[in-house]
Amino acid sequence: MKAVQVVGYHQPLALTEVEQPKATGPFDVVVRIGGAGVCRTDLHILEGQWAEKSGVALPYTIGHENAGWVHEVGSAVTNVAVGDKVIVHPLITCGLCRACRSGDDVHCAASQFPGIDTAGGYAEYLKTSARSVVKIDDALEPSDVAALADAGLTAYHAAAKAARRLRPGDRCVVIGAGGLGHIGVQVLKALTAAEIVVVDRNPDAVKLAETIGADHGVVADGSHVSAVLDLTGGNGAETVIDFVGEGGATKDGVAMLRRAGDYHVVGYGENIDVPTIDIISTEINLIGNLVGSYNDLCELMVLAAQGKVTLHTQKYPLDRFQDAIDDLDAGRVRGRAILTP
Amino acid sequence: MKAVQVVGYHQPLALTEVEQPKATGPFDVVVRIGGAGVCRTDLHILEGQWAEKSGVALPYTIGHENAGWVHEVGSAVTNVAVGDKVIVHPLITCGLCRACRSGDDVHCAASQFPGIDTAGGYAEYLKTSARSVVKIDDALEPSDVAALADAGLTAYHAAAKAARRLRPGDRCVVIGAGGLGHIGVQVLKALTAAEIVVVDRNPDAVKLAETIGADHGVVADGSHVSAVLDLTGGNGAETVIDFVGEGGATKDGVAMLRRAGDYHVVGYGENIDVPTIDIISTEINLIGNLVGSYNDLCELMVLAAQGKVTLHTQKYPLDRFQDAIDDLDAGRVRGRAILTP
Amino acid sequence: MKAVQVVGYHQPLALTEVEQPKATGPFDVVVRIGGAGVCRTDLHILEGQWAEKSGVALPYTIGHENAGWVHEVGSAVTNVAVGDKVIVHPLITCGLCRACRSGDDVHCAASQFPGIDTAGGYAEYLKTSARSVVKIDDALEPSDVAALADAGLTAYHAAAKAARRLRPGDRCVVIGAGGLGHIGVQVLKALTAAEIVVVDRNPDAVKLAETIGADHGVVADGSHVSAVLDLTGGNGAETVIDFVGEGGATKDGVAMLRRAGDYHVVGYGENIDVPTIDIISTEINLIGNLVGSYNDLCELMVLAAQGKVTLHTQKYPLDRFQDAIDDLDAGRVRGRAILTP
Amino acid sequence: MKAVQVVGYHQPLALTEVEQPKATGPFDVVVRIGGAGVCRTDLHILEGQWAEKSGVALPYTIGHENAGWVHEVGSAVTNVAVGDKVIVHPLITCGLCRACRSGDDVHCAASQFPGIDTAGGYAEYLKTSARSVVKIDDALEPSDVAALADAGLTAYHAAAKAARRLRPGDRCVVIGAGGLGHIGVQVLKALTAAEIVVVDRNPDAVKLAETIGADHGVVADGSHVSAVLDLTGGNGAETVIDFVGEGGATKDGVAMLRRAGDYHVVGYGENIDVPTIDIISTEINLIGNLVGSYNDLCELMVLAAQGKVTLHTQKYPLDRFQDAIDDLDAGRVRGRAILTP
Repeated sequence: MKAVQVVGYHQPLALTEVEQPKATGPFDVVVRIGGAGVCRTDLHILEGQWAEKSGVALPYTIGHENAGWVHEVGSAVTNVAVGDKVIVHPLITCGLCRACRSGDDVHCAASQFPGIDTAGGYAEYLKTSARSVVKIDDALEPSDVAALADAGLTAYHAAAKAARRLRPGDRCVVIGAGGLGHIGVQVLKALTAAEIVVVDRNPDAVKLAETIGADHGVVADGSHVSAVLDLTGGNGAETVIDFVGEGGATKDGVAMLRRAGDYHVVGYGENIDVPTIDIISTEINLIGNLVGSYNDLCELMVLAAQGKVTLHTQKYPLDRFQDAIDDLDAGRVRGRAILTP
Repeated sequence: MKAVQVVGYHQPLALTEVEQPKATGPFDVVVRIGGAGVCRTDLHILEGQWAEKSGVALPYTIGHENAGWVHEVGSAVTNVAVGDKVIVHPLITCGLCRACRSGDDVHCAASQFPGIDTAGGYAEYLKTSARSVVKIDDALEPSDVAALADAGLTAYHAAAKAARRLRPGDRCVVIGAGGLGHIGVQVLKALTAAEIVVVDRNPDAVKLAETIGADHGVVADGSHVSAVLDLTGGNGAETVIDFVGEGGATKDGVAMLRRAGDYHVVGYGENIDVPTIDIISTEINLIGNLVGSYNDLCELMVLAAQGKVTLHTQKYPLDRFQDAIDDLDAGRVRGRAILTP
Repeated sequence: MKAVQVVGYHQPLALTEVEQPKATGPFDVVVRIGGAGVCRTDLHILEGQWAEKSGVALPYTIGHENAGWVHEVGSAVTNVAVGDKVIVHPLITCGLCRACRSGDDVHCAASQFPGIDTAGGYAEYLKTSARSVVKIDDALEPSDVAALADAGLTAYHAAAKAARRLRPGDRCVVIGAGGLGHIGVQVLKALTAAEIVVVDRNPDAVKLAETIGADHGVVADGSHVSAVLDLTGGNGAETVIDFVGEGGATKDGVAMLRRAGDYHVVGYGENIDVPTIDIISTEINLIGNLVGSYNDLCELMVLAAQGKVTLHTQKYPLDRFQDAIDDLDAGRVRGRAILTP
Repeated sequence: MKAVQVVGYHQPLALTEVEQPKATGPFDVVVRIGGAGVCRTDLHILEGQWAEKSGVALPYTIGHENAGWVHEVGSAVTNVAVGDKVIVHPLITCGLCRACRSGDDVHCAASQFPGIDTAGGYAEYLKTSARSVVKIDDALEPSDVAALADAGLTAYHAAAKAARRLRPGDRCVVIGAGGLGHIGVQVLKALTAAEIVVVDRNPDAVKLAETIGADHGVVADGSHVSAVLDLTGGNGAETVIDFVGEGGATKDGVAMLRRAGDYHVVGYGENIDVPTIDIISTEINLIGNLVGSYNDLCELMVLAAQGKVTLHTQKYPLDRFQDAIDDLDAGRVRGRAILTP
């Protein structure tokens, strides 16, 4: 089959012919790819940033945001059948460790990450596991939802976790109105009655966020912390979800927080650097967020099927992968770039 | 009445005669002091560290860890009567703001803090509020429990909050086996079946902690992070409660944490400085802790009455306040110093 | 001032002249009534059903769903000022017992219930407490929201409690599409993405519910349990909120429940009568619901101000109270009947 | 191998020779039995009470409380190895349904129950699944812990769930001081500081419960409801765990409950029959409990290894199964009867 592979760091990806994966293990599921998201992480992989962390041997097929149709299943697979339309959870998890047994499979003690440390979905077929495939509604198309598999799932996980504490009258600041923030706002809108304040450097992104549910938009122009304080009666917001995590976002985010508030770290880059006296005197919480569980992905697919979460996509045939990469790198992609068969 | 007052920063406290407080407001409660804890914060007040923050006008009476007997009550007080033996919650709260209405009165929008920003308990009598007095068991003496009013309450609050997530088989690291850590270990022992690992620089404090419930003691000699990792199968602990917060404790504490673990900030001094990538890739939480609520103090008094939480005290008559201060400053106090009538 | 009083059971109410209440206690608040809801409970009071339970001495002024403007405040009131537009929580609570200190003030150990056991709001003025008044948005009118003070609050409390467990993809059955069910559906819509199934005997009420957010309507015609099972893939719903509680609703409600589901009791009348073997073999929960807390009422007022919860009202001047009573008794009121100044 | 089978209802069990199970499926685990608990349910099976419910075809091997050593594993098993000492969770669960993916595997959509609907553990070997085996501490013996696999797990699950709401000063009533109540008291003692009140008809059982942690014992002699009310200041207990569920226990249990309290149904037999008005006017919860999850069993094994939960056992060689059955039926077993190799 055709596959797009990393053949060396700081080199372009290469389209090549590889053997089609087979369902050899009892829980294996082979998915015929209908859409594979092109993610900024893929650019970082090419730059070698993940080389050591993943330990993957080159060449290998990248692509960790995948959806398609079940093509072949292992002997013990009971939850999907050949032909089912599915989105693929980014992790292959063991199902036996305590984390998996708690529904917290992201912290599986023995997981694999196709597209990062094993063959991914820039290809015609992908091998994953019965534990990773979520059937999607008839109304949804793999190429439309593929990017929800990782970017969307991460945003859902953080927003849904934050929503558990939000009550009517509470305020939730969303820092970053890009891909993840865009999903985050829609999820918050679906799950809470809290007022949503979106903060971004890009006035157009702020405006767009207002059209999909944000109650207030604030352009991050230097006065944004005080703008948020003004919007919250000087008290700060009960919750901040930071999808940026760099360029000063963490300091701003903590400054926007109300006493006893929750600051959710999702984006990353800089250090969180806060005096312990500030953490205790206001009793705030700094909460990490990492992808989402299998059940999170099921819930996100419900919202997608209900039309409550949508994502703009820009599609490219698989063999035009380089255009997708180039467009993403040059900031020419609106929404998410998706490779299609 | 006699009262010990701050008459100037960087000056000794002064014993003086002041007017005895009266219950003029409907919810006022005047307590005859049976014990007033001498706390390291009192030393910091004298050094002027709180001058700006509290905005208090000198001279004023210090002392924020108080217990005694109800001496006089305002017209609307129904929960205590003259003669009742009580411990005094450190804050006077409004009872009307959303935080107070949620049981989270530490975040009251309009609180006072006797001993910090208004007259405290180094005196014969203290004016507080009906909302601040907790009746204590007949078997308890004010001078024995006074130090639980603030230091003990803070430790209880953090340990009880941490306990809510701890299950049998989980490990909880307690950094700091001083006054707060000592209470924290006893509270964890009473509320959970988690394994408790105590870490302190002082081998004697570690040994003492082991006698009151710690399952493992680790001397912080540079190898303590790896010692904790060894004790936790290389995975780190589900929970770390850091009663130190300085001298590198925060970096060590985060390094001892398991994926998805909770790091509780209680002690303070240095900055928490953690790469956001580390927070999200392990999905850890950094959780602030500040004193405890009125209900927390009630619960702590139950544990004290059951003999599950005890505290060594060293008592001084009120007019020997300077000896207490000097002993504390010189490290000569075992447990807590208490001023008595 | 004018007041409408119960002068004897099984007798009509009487309009009479009584002394206007004064703010004599420190936390007293006198409210000039802008709207007083006429509730089915008022009919029950006249039938003597509450005589023993409340122990109230006749004559007394009824009316427990009140809103208006602050007219006078006691010496210690800080949360409202004369002229403020407020809705009145149905209970006067002590603020000092453990329940009040936990935010669970409905279970106050020493509460009063104006309109039930002390003078209520079918009058020009009502005496309540600082702890009972919630300021409302400029855009809301007392006569429009008065009925949210008790009926609406009860529906909010149950729906918001239920919502905490509901995830996208879950189903929530609402039994009863009358006044409370109407509010309940709107609250669920605001707080969750769960699918809402409304069940009522009245096809018009079912239709109306579908226009305000119910995803599915089921007429309770004998086949409704199996209709709900069909809508839930044969598994039953994760949650049932029963606003009826009589005429077989409890048996039906439990039969509509999924394994590990929550059945919320709100309406009352019949007995819950379920074999313990059924409770344990499916591990279901039967959850009581009683009015709502002060904070619940604040949150409901946020939803009302956001336009997410509305209520149809039919208004009557105070001295036409008998028409309101008669219309309610005869089923001629659409939405809620409200007495206005 | 030898196995004890049900050969007909209302007939004695029969010891027979059957084929030894093989690990044919990828997740199969064959356990060499070290202890198989003899449970009252086994008597009910012989009386035919489960015939219709389980749909099992006779003859089949009974025994659902099993522990032993791993003898053979399927191709995909990674969590245990041959020779490991294990206790066996009573259910074989699918690992793929939403309940399994939430850690709530007791509600698995496709589970099997060895000893009830497929071959159980009154035998030399048992076939179960990788998802059902919990490794136990070196210090524990299979024949000592086998009865914790089902009876103990049920008690743990209910007590641990109850414990999540119990705070110091709260009271938990345990109705029934037999096998399950005995475990329940020990678990509550390990996980909470709540006061434990044990109620049983048998004064000796009450006395025994007091020696293992109950703070108060009450003999159920007709005055027990008022005795519990006296012990709780007239208010009732925050939590009641009813391990009996028949003979009037449910009515008594609900009557012992405080406002907003939790009544846990564990034992079964009679109907819960409570007026809805009583449920809502006190806002109580009636909470079902069914066995426990895999993670619950892991936690119970931690408590067992720590010596916090122990169980008296009476052992019989497998071929003396009839003596065990007879002794259980005649009330001659102290603690639990266990069949050993």
